[in-house]
Amino acid sequence: MPRVELLAIGTELLLGQLVDTNTAFVAGHLSQAGIDVYATHAVGDNRERIARAVTDALDRADGVISTGGLGPTVDDLTKEAVCDALGVEAELYAPALATLERAFAALGRTMRENNRKQAMLPAGSVVLENANGTAPGFLVFRDDGKFVACMPGVPAEMKPMLTGELIPRLRERLGVSDAIYTRVVHTVNVAESEIDHRIEDLFRTSENPKVAVLAHGGRCDVKIMAKAPSRERAEAMIAPLQAEVESKLAGFVFGLDAETLETAIHRLLQSDGLTCAVAESCTGGRIAAALTSVPGSSQSFLGGIVAYDNSVKIAQLGVRPETLGAHGAVSEQVACEMARGACEAIGANVAVATTGIAGPDGGSEEKPVGLVWVAVAWAGGEARARSIRWRGDRELIQSRAASAALGILWNALIKR
Amino acid sequence: MPRVELLAIGTELLLGQLVDTNTAFVAGHLSQAGIDVYATHAVGDNRERIARAVTDALDRADGVISTGGLGPTVDDLTKEAVCDALGVEAELYAPALATLERAFAALGRTMRENNRKQAMLPAGSVVLENANGTAPGFLVFRDDGKFVACMPGVPAEMKPMLTGELIPRLRERLGVSDAIYTRVVHTVNVAESEIDHRIEDLFRTSENPKVAVLAHGGRCDVKIMAKAPSRERAEAMIAPLQAEVESKLAGFVFGLDAETLETAIHRLLQSDGLTCAVAESCTGGRIAAALTSVPGSSQSFLGGIVAYDNSVKIAQLGVRPETLGAHGAVSEQVACEMARGACEAIGANVAVATTGIAGPDGGSEEKPVGLVWVAVAWAGGEARARSIRWRGDRELIQSRAASAALGILWNALIKR
Repeated sequence: MPRVELLAIGTELLLGQLVDTNTAFVAGHLSQAGIDVYATHAVGDNRERIARAVTDALDRADGVISTGGLGPTVDDLTKEAVCDALGVEAELYAPALATLERAFAALGRTMRENNRKQAMLPAGSVVLENANGTAPGFLVFRDDGKFVACMPGVPAEMKPMLTGELIPRLRERLGVSDAIYTRVVHTVNVAESEIDHRIEDLFRTSENPKVAVLAHGGRCDVKIMAKAPSRERAEAMIAPLQAEVESKLAGFVFGLDAETLETAIHRLLQSDGLTCAVAESCTGGRIAAALTSVPGSSQSFLGGIVAYDNSVKIAQLGVRPETLGAHGAVSEQVACEMARGACEAIGANVAVATTGIAGPDGGSEEKPVGLVWVAVAWAGGEARARSIRWRGDRELIQSRAASAALGILWNALIKR
Repeated sequence: MPRVELLAIGTELLLGQLVDTNTAFVAGHLSQAGIDVYATHAVGDNRERIARAVTDALDRADGVISTGGLGPTVDDLTKEAVCDALGVEAELYAPALATLERAFAALGRTMRENNRKQAMLPAGSVVLENANGTAPGFLVFRDDGKFVACMPGVPAEMKPMLTGELIPRLRERLGVSDAIYTRVVHTVNVAESEIDHRIEDLFRTSENPKVAVLAHGGRCDVKIMAKAPSRERAEAMIAPLQAEVESKLAGFVFGLDAETLETAIHRLLQSDGLTCAVAESCTGGRIAAALTSVPGSSQSFLGGIVAYDNSVKIAQLGVRPETLGAHGAVSEQVACEMARGACEAIGANVAVATTGIAGPDGGSEEKPVGLVWVAVAWAGGEARARSIRWRGDRELIQSRAASAALGILWNALIKR
């Protein structure tokens, strides 16, 4: 497996003004593509230090891949430094210049002399097309077969260049045939330990494909990764394991790969011709925000009531003052009345409601900070509620409660 | 100014499974504390490579600061590698062992033999206390005055160790007296170019303190940074510039330092004894979510209506069907009726409303994707609306519209 080192370029990284998300993206895609990342580095906009970092990395690894420093300003020194490190000159690349001229024409802007600098590349370079900006990337091999590849630092420009231009070229040139293909099985309403227990034997027996469980934000993904020479071959290797995972976790799997719980909910609602609504107290609009993040969600999400104050619970959702008086706002009864009220007020087929204590104040022994009731009601039917308790700060409690409410709504839809 | 290099340790960083946020945090705090970060690196959980990275960094810089690899498992190799790099042995540190025993007792857990490993530190180390976990950090100086400092990788453990333990010790030992103190002046409803224009002369004249404008998410911060031996001295240097910035940007400054637009809005509402409500179409709950993120927001935020479907605009907010028919849902008139309706339905003193086209579908020549109307209404009074247009994807349009609505609400409160 070829080994590379990554180099992020930009003084702002050393001042802590920017979290470097490029490196994780590049490292993840290279690993998946069968190219091993040996180390990563960040240096400032300094020609000598960039050149030294490139030289040092080439001593240890088969290649260096950099991000940043390809712009038109005097601070952008990556190309000069790479020329220094490789002992070559920069040359004007006609195809790069033509691309630049097209990009400027499309923007209706005049190209300045310093933009022509962006078409100067180290001698021997292959141009990496930039579909989303003016700075081309490049890939240049040394006589000993080691290489330097440079991409812009703007994520929107770097990402397609990496996946569409650089990785295919590197795999071909370095003779890498296998890649890692991943199927993600998304689950909800089940604990990581329960998943571990149910698919334990798959962990032990599987090396390729390999199975891993990843918990995040209160939900778990099961990842099935196959190393194979093609997607078709990988799919064939993944399919039986995937079927086994899905069968052992039946009732908890809401989707695969790019699907989210929100898109799964809208898919279920739309396939049944149903509409939904929300009634939110402690989650304060977060469930509605999640449901409306999906394009086309207006087909199945009608709206909701953020009933933060009790007066709003009474006036907009029809919660009875006696219920509030007898059980308090954070109670099973109020959650159920909120959900039923949202169905009626909004005219939806199904509604989910939350009421809880997000903190940091307002908790008691009986009703501690982090206690949240979630209820689901169907139009004209009964409501059912359950309580969950989280430990953490206000932000965590609010976001986990919204996420749990989506899980409970999804469950109500598949159990229908 | 002393120069250090940072080293993040963990194979997951090289697989792209984790975005390294520690490095930016450490780099930012060191820069502010007068310690220059020369380069940053990440390596995997490999004793030899960690040792080599430490040795190489000490060749270039005055010290190395690492995060990660201090846990009790066999993968945690930082200490062994640092011993190799420095040519010293690990020793059992009684104070570190005592701290570990206290931490385990507090957790009610039994200490295992591999946890004792966490009290073994390179000979000559100073222990860095870990208030939030079991792994102590350490700082060790070589005979030539260069140093290695190691901290855990868990952010909640690393951050207080860096600011409370490591930085004060380094500043004292390295004789760093100056630090950079920053005042952030937050603005809203004003473009970066307008700020540049108004405070242009401050950029030119100021070196220390220095002034910078930082745009993010549709808002701008003015940062005033003073290099000084103490906070008091820095405050004295910052005060006149801050007064000048605040006066030149009067009407746009909503707060300083840790204040957010949401906290500023609640402060204004509470100081005037007012309550607010929201009516959200295209922002789908995001304004309510922002307003309820503030602890104690229930004092001034009563609730809101997410009126995604027109039927909800009519039934819950009293928007007239004729208005919808004549002008369409995305219009000045509907925005105003929504804001007025929210005031009435929720019983609030002031309400903000949004209606727009978040996309990707639903746009037209006259009403393109990204067009959003925002209205503010006072109870019993008239509503006023303005339109804004963003280019970008659904997520950007929804979040920018919510942010703009908060800015417009804030403006209505200060102009009251």
